[in-house]
Amino acid sequence: MNDGPGYTWPVQELPGPELIAGAAARLRGRVHRTPVMRSRTLDALAGARLQFKCENFQRVGAFKYRGACNAVLSLSAAAVQRGVATHSSGNHAAALACVAREFGVPAYVVMPSTAPPAKRRAVAGYGAQIFTCEPTLEAREAGLAEVVARTGATFVHPFNDSAVILGQGTAALELLEEAGGLECLVVPVGGGGLAAGTALAVAARSPSTRVVAAEPAGADDAFRSLRDGVIYPSLNPKTIADGLLTSLGELTFALLRRYRVEVVTVAEEAIVRAMRLVWERMKLVIEASAAVPVAAVLEGGVAEAGERVGIILSGGNANLDSLPWKAGGGEGG
Amino acid sequence: MNDGPGYTWPVQELPGPELIAGAAARLRGRVHRTPVMRSRTLDALAGARLQFKCENFQRVGAFKYRGACNAVLSLSAAAVQRGVATHSSGNHAAALACVAREFGVPAYVVMPSTAPPAKRRAVAGYGAQIFTCEPTLEAREAGLAEVVARTGATFVHPFNDSAVILGQGTAALELLEEAGGLECLVVPVGGGGLAAGTALAVAARSPSTRVVAAEPAGADDAFRSLRDGVIYPSLNPKTIADGLLTSLGELTFALLRRYRVEVVTVAEEAIVRAMRLVWERMKLVIEASAAVPVAAVLEGGVAEAGERVGIILSGGNANLDSLPWKAGGGEGG
Repeated sequence: MNDGPGYTWPVQELPGPELIAGAAARLRGRVHRTPVMRSRTLDALAGARLQFKCENFQRVGAFKYRGACNAVLSLSAAAVQRGVATHSSGNHAAALACVAREFGVPAYVVMPSTAPPAKRRAVAGYGAQIFTCEPTLEAREAGLAEVVARTGATFVHPFNDSAVILGQGTAALELLEEAGGLECLVVPVGGGGLAAGTALAVAARSPSTRVVAAEPAGADDAFRSLRDGVIYPSLNPKTIADGLLTSLGELTFALLRRYRVEVVTVAEEAIVRAMRLVWERMKLVIEASAAVPVAAVLEGGVAEAGERVGIILSGGNANLDSLPWKAGGGEGG
Repeated sequence: MNDGPGYTWPVQELPGPELIAGAAARLRGRVHRTPVMRSRTLDALAGARLQFKCENFQRVGAFKYRGACNAVLSLSAAAVQRGVATHSSGNHAAALACVAREFGVPAYVVMPSTAPPAKRRAVAGYGAQIFTCEPTLEAREAGLAEVVARTGATFVHPFNDSAVILGQGTAALELLEEAGGLECLVVPVGGGGLAAGTALAVAARSPSTRVVAAEPAGADDAFRSLRDGVIYPSLNPKTIADGLLTSLGELTFALLRRYRVEVVTVAEEAIVRAMRLVWERMKLVIEASAAVPVAAVLEGGVAEAGERVGIILSGGNANLDSLPWKAGGGEGG
């Protein structure tokens, strides 16, 4: 099988759809089975039948808890006892810290000195030990290597990890079980963990469903990477969707190619409009990243009229002090 | 039976708990059976086991749809055809307009010239005819009388009406069915429709549950009215909980006394804190009025440690352009 020039991951080492049910069984009772909600107003605006999987209600307020939890459950008992580590300033760090606390083991998080205080507090609040480093990828990786060498903790990558990807895929699995007969399933894409996991869940349960990954136009590296068959780094991304700033990993890139996931991009104004609409009409607090697939559906081009469309509302950790539709809220920055 | 000097409603004319099941049957399929949600964080803060009935997800974003719908369903077919009318600038007007549209009959709403444009748009959006009047109670009542005389529409009072009260009570009925074994059920009180309906539902299904009505300290007429056995008018209320500005009606007053509903008051700062907490940790958009019972529980004095406490989150129609914890958001005004 030749998927083109950028394809570097041996296909026989890719996690397959047959593994998704095992991840779901492993996570049962540990993750919330989040509700699926509907909205007449949004259906009317989209001209489609939308079903929203509310991962903003997931533990730590984001689907990331699924992947972190599945990753820890996939380690040996001895490895779990030594603890887990990551470099991240977002929902993955909070999720990993929360899982570690559940297991009573240490979590080590390497964070750039520029990370927002609120995110630092959230991760610290879950009991993680935080190591501050310079705000460069090199400094993060060096800091992480040092922590791992010293503590024996296992590095859990935020997305380029089979167990993490399979864990994220359980959100789509639940949605497919509940909604059934979806023509299309739309998720946000940053590093690609949720999109790849969703592709696996769809391949396992509903192969005729199209998987669409929605990306901010201001951070369109996944769009360009899949178009050209090469992983482009995410350079100077400009978007309020701060969960979608990273580039794809080799594993997520290979899975998105293999399952022919379509990537669409949306403008910042459309993201802000969609975010506000979900708050106002659905009464759901979602973060900007979660509004990206909503925006893609509302802008048109993703779903045909009357189609049944699933959307994963990926998280709800919005900054309530700085709303993007307010003066000074930083739209586009 | 003598309930004291302020008791003017003949007890034999009060709606009884035996009527609540009929209202629930009438509303089935017409109102959303809203979810009941929980939060570890809020449980920990309250030292109790909280169950939140999410009426912010109800149609038009508030429990008011229940009462308006039950009122219309309790009219004769001929009366329904002539339409319905009310004077209100809040959720009741939107609810009545929405119900009327469902039935394909006219809704007439008399609104003061000072009503916020957003509320006017919401009511107009549901297809109601709006009549603007001076911002006095006299002008509203005169405007309403004129509309009713001219159109033959039936006036549906926002709270002082048996069918409205019974409709509102179905939210508590659903919560009691789902949660079971509640020691305490806490609701906001303005005109008293939700509180009175809740008292009837509790009397019907769970008589040992205490009903607590929470009121802003800056609009504490219900507290004083029940303490002194006289209906005090709500004069110059000062609170961000703009759904709780009205005084009790004779019928709601009589029911709250009969079922010995306890009224507690909470400070503005506690309301704002509780509202923000529900947005931030539960990812639910609620309006300030819905935060009042949450504040009452979190401030203590309502529930004993470890008790099972139901809270009705009454609505989610918050103004997203002016949050009360932001500069200029109008806390206390």
